[in-house]
Amino acid sequence: MSQHIASIYDRDLEGVQARIMKMGGLVEQAIQDSSKALETRDEELAEKVRQSDIAIDELEEMIHEETARIIALRAPTAGDLRVVLSIMKISSNLERIGDYAKNMAKRTSVLLQMTQITGAHSALRRMAREVESMLQDSLDAFIQRDPVLAQDVINRDRDVDQMYNALFREFLTFMMEDPRNITACMHLHFMAKNTERMGDHVTSIAEQVIYLVTGDTPDEERLKGDKTSVDPSIAPPAPSHGGK
Amino acid sequence: MSQHIASIYDRDLEGVQARIMKMGGLVEQAIQDSSKALETRDEELAEKVRQSDIAIDELEEMIHEETARIIALRAPTAGDLRVVLSIMKISSNLERIGDYAKNMAKRTSVLLQMTQITGAHSALRRMAREVESMLQDSLDAFIQRDPVLAQDVINRDRDVDQMYNALFREFLTFMMEDPRNITACMHLHFMAKNTERMGDHVTSIAEQVIYLVTGDTPDEERLKGDKTSVDPSIAPPAPSHGGK
Repeated sequence: MSQHIASIYDRDLEGVQARIMKMGGLVEQAIQDSSKALETRDEELAEKVRQSDIAIDELEEMIHEETARIIALRAPTAGDLRVVLSIMKISSNLERIGDYAKNMAKRTSVLLQMTQITGAHSALRRMAREVESMLQDSLDAFIQRDPVLAQDVINRDRDVDQMYNALFREFLTFMMEDPRNITACMHLHFMAKNTERMGDHVTSIAEQVIYLVTGDTPDEERLKGDKTSVDPSIAPPAPSHGGK
Repeated sequence: MSQHIASIYDRDLEGVQARIMKMGGLVEQAIQDSSKALETRDEELAEKVRQSDIAIDELEEMIHEETARIIALRAPTAGDLRVVLSIMKISSNLERIGDYAKNMAKRTSVLLQMTQITGAHSALRRMAREVESMLQDSLDAFIQRDPVLAQDVINRDRDVDQMYNALFREFLTFMMEDPRNITACMHLHFMAKNTERMGDHVTSIAEQVIYLVTGDTPDEERLKGDKTSVDPSIAPPAPSHGGK
């Protein structure tokens, strides 16, 4: 690339990276707000999350168009192309996380009309906080091209999976104890699973960073932490047959 | 593009399109097998689904590399670039659908050890069949660049969402009736939700086709059919407090 074209390319790339960071900021806020809305019973905040998803989707579309334009006009090769394609993938991950936050916010109003499940709301919020901090770090790792920080994010996803497993068991127990808890627990379980999936998408972003810097794809079958699909022991401690 | 470069480009594109169709075939099979394994209590078939996900993931990686190589070497512009980027997106969707099928297969062995929920397995299989046929049509629509067929797929996703809503209500009722059903219903509900999400990814593929042909992105907020997040009436008919 000539000096001149290279500098236009750099400017384009900086522009689209700035947009990714803006999108990341909105998604972080959405994760935080969606779990806070549930814990503080704040329907207005839930509505704010639903609204912000529109802006997130628009940013993804813009980033997609800009990266396509960069590829078409600048024809970046090898390393440069890898950066552009990573940005495209990261924006898809961010969009999905935003969708999960929106789905959680949609459920909030329904849940607020039901039996309260003690402790579940704050447990969900702790889980969401961990995912949010992982997202922050994965985007920092991207900007700084820091594979060590990215690997740290990947490792922390196991904690999120463990929090999810604990909540799953808890919900089963609550439902067994009193069938009146069933509907609320089904909705809460959705939210827990959504949060766990957000963690998976954050992990994908961190994996992109590692691929970008080292050229290696981390092994996909990293110790997956959601044990509920394979562990038959995940059933409540004592099936109290007749409800409460 | 010169005649010579154009024909190399066409050959490259045909190669990667052929790979997408191969990947699509494997994913269709995985959808079918994962629900069949549950209905026919076939653990070997479930294992086959888990194995085939490895091949699906490898194909996605290959397609990603090939499309990146095409972009880098041929520098396609405008319409051609749109095709290449669509292929990249479609392969991501297929990979996610394959993941959902694998997750369902993982749950099969656990479920086979639990109380049978009458009718649920065949209802799930009907849902999976509809998603599989939608996937077939969306890939046909892609190859034939047929936006009418693609729109038809998008419309049919509403049926899948309705099947999911019906199952969700059914699971709630089963759990209320007898707490011994709770654990099995939680797992079955996962599978129903996974199938519904597969439908969403198939819809994304169909939307890609429409974008590719017409340049328009169909409105994302198409009448979403999963009503369980917003409809407070989705609770079982009569909470029979004390279990059965």
